[in-house]
Amino acid sequence: MIKPLGDRVVLKRLEAEETTKSGIVLTGSSKEKPQEALVIAVGPGGYVDGNKVEMEVKVGDKVLFSKYAGTEVKHAGEEVIVVRQSDILAIVE
Amino acid sequence: MIKPLGDRVVLKRLEAEETTKSGIVLTGSSKEKPQEALVIAVGPGGYVDGNKVEMEVKVGDKVLFSKYAGTEVKHAGEEVIVVRQSDILAIVE
Amino acid sequence: MIKPLGDRVVLKRLEAEETTKSGIVLTGSSKEKPQEALVIAVGPGGYVDGNKVEMEVKVGDKVLFSKYAGTEVKHAGEEVIVVRQSDILAIVE
Amino acid sequence: MIKPLGDRVVLKRLEAEETTKSGIVLTGSSKEKPQEALVIAVGPGGYVDGNKVEMEVKVGDKVLFSKYAGTEVKHAGEEVIVVRQSDILAIVE
Amino acid sequence: MIKPLGDRVVLKRLEAEETTKSGIVLTGSSKEKPQEALVIAVGPGGYVDGNKVEMEVKVGDKVLFSKYAGTEVKHAGEEVIVVRQSDILAIVE
Amino acid sequence: MIKPLGDRVVLKRLEAEETTKSGIVLTGSSKEKPQEALVIAVGPGGYVDGNKVEMEVKVGDKVLFSKYAGTEVKHAGEEVIVVRQSDILAIVE
Amino acid sequence: MIKPLGDRVVLKRLEAEETTKSGIVLTGSSKEKPQEALVIAVGPGGYVDGNKVEMEVKVGDKVLFSKYAGTEVKHAGEEVIVVRQSDILAIVE
Repeated sequence: MIKPLGDRVVLKRLEAEETTKSGIVLTGSSKEKPQEALVIAVGPGGYVDGNKVEMEVKVGDKVLFSKYAGTEVKHAGEEVIVVRQSDILAIVE
Repeated sequence: MIKPLGDRVVLKRLEAEETTKSGIVLTGSSKEKPQEALVIAVGPGGYVDGNKVEMEVKVGDKVLFSKYAGTEVKHAGEEVIVVRQSDILAIVE
Repeated sequence: MIKPLGDRVVLKRLEAEETTKSGIVLTGSSKEKPQEALVIAVGPGGYVDGNKVEMEVKVGDKVLFSKYAGTEVKHAGEEVIVVRQSDILAIVE
Repeated sequence: MIKPLGDRVVLKRLEAEETTKSGIVLTGSSKEKPQEALVIAVGPGGYVDGNKVEMEVKVGDKVLFSKYAGTEVKHAGEEVIVVRQSDILAIVE
Repeated sequence: MIKPLGDRVVLKRLEAEETTKSGIVLTGSSKEKPQEALVIAVGPGGYVDGNKVEMEVKVGDKVLFSKYAGTEVKHAGEEVIVVRQSDILAIVE
Repeated sequence: MIKPLGDRVVLKRLEAEETTKSGIVLTGSSKEKPQEALVIAVGPGGYVDGNKVEMEVKVGDKVLFSKYAGTEVKHAGEEVIVVRQSDILAIVE
Repeated sequence: MIKPLGDRVVLKRLEAEETTKSGIVLTGSSKEKPQEALVIAVGPGGYVDGNKVEMEVKVGDKVLFSKYAGTEVKHAGEEVIVVRQSDILAIVE
């Protein structure tokens, strides 16, 4: 199990196919790397660089995130991405 | 539906034609990428990097925004742009 | 009508001729781009990046501003420049 | 014995083999430098750059950390890495 | 008349000759651009980037300023320089 | 005698040989410049860039410090390094 | 007379010869530009960038300063350097 520290969030990229179903498709040069993802773990928030951060996303949320943000790791055989919550642009419903 | 986080705002670029009608046309090299847009979703504001941000734009506002700001995504078949409110220069009425 | 957000100010560049009359002419390589302008719209000020900003310029002020500051747009057929108040150096009377 | 100052943490990289067992394998170009490590010493926290930092990791934790973070030194014949706690992405359990 | 905003100060460069009389001559490669100047207008100070600034120079002061600081403009036929007070190194008496 | 200002610390590099005895040897390309040093003078701490800094090291401590940190000077015939306390990674015992 | 503003300090470089007498000689490539200097004028301190600065050096102190810091000017026929107090590393006694 991954327990992110601070304001970090663990994301699992959604496939281009799933992305289309939900009505979000990425444009132009970013087509190969969908920016839509599923939240699979959320840090506790708290003070980050001296600023109090409250977590606004929760496990199960579908989110859009900054293409160049985060660190990729493989977890239990799946690629996941660890980002800061501030790299998450929006929740998609 | 897109629900932006923090001080983020989702914009839909207005076509060059619409732009002309409203009296705003972009100059010089920026002609191809109109900076006028319609606000289609607004984040809740709150604390961003430790500073309280109150949202000054609302859905339906026509705005001018910084040409290099934001992230482009396609939503429900339309290209939209996610920017921070601080990237919005002015409301055009 | 343009309503600037936060500490932004909309400026209309003054022609080199008018500039001469008022006694301000720009030197050297900046001669082609006069830095003197007329304030045509002023934002409400308030908190910008967590700092309270009070607006010190008003519509009708003639001002000097930083040559590389701001974003140029065309409004009602005229080129205008949107700058932050902190990019305004001085009021010229 | 190494006693880290402030919010610093001393890490011992886990071998690629151990990494596989725990279900975390790094992707792509980062394969040669596993980002999974064991916490072997933890600083006292306290004020770092004027911000109060509470330590969230403890000796014995298995953690993921930013690939380019920290300083490598050899201690008692073993390579260790000194990072700031903010360079630690998550605890892996 | 030039009325600087915030912590800005308007300076008039002193000629190399005058400079010599006062006992300050600039060294080496900076010889062509004397950094000694006369204060001809002073802003009101107040909050600049959220920090309260009190003005320490007054009209008529002879000052030393950072060679690369400020913006040059021509005012009433004379070249003047608009700098922030923090670009002024010292008052010369 | 050197009396460092603020949060500065004066260090005397330990020889590679001494380093080996204490069990710390530097890896790879940093082999020529040992990062282990002896604290020979400590500043009073106090407010540094507006943040209160308490000194955590004392004269006689053996420390690890960031390889690219500090300024080298020769004192009483010996090379010493002046660093900020924040460039010290850990105390080695 | 030079009266530095804020946290600025005016220094007069000490000759390499004097430097040797006091036991401080600079190493390697910095040999030509001794970093040891005499304090000849001290600013009043006070708020600098919003932080209260108390002056820790006084006229007559012999100090070590960062080689690349400050602005050189000639005063009363002598080269002096204007630095911020934070560019002073240590007082040498």
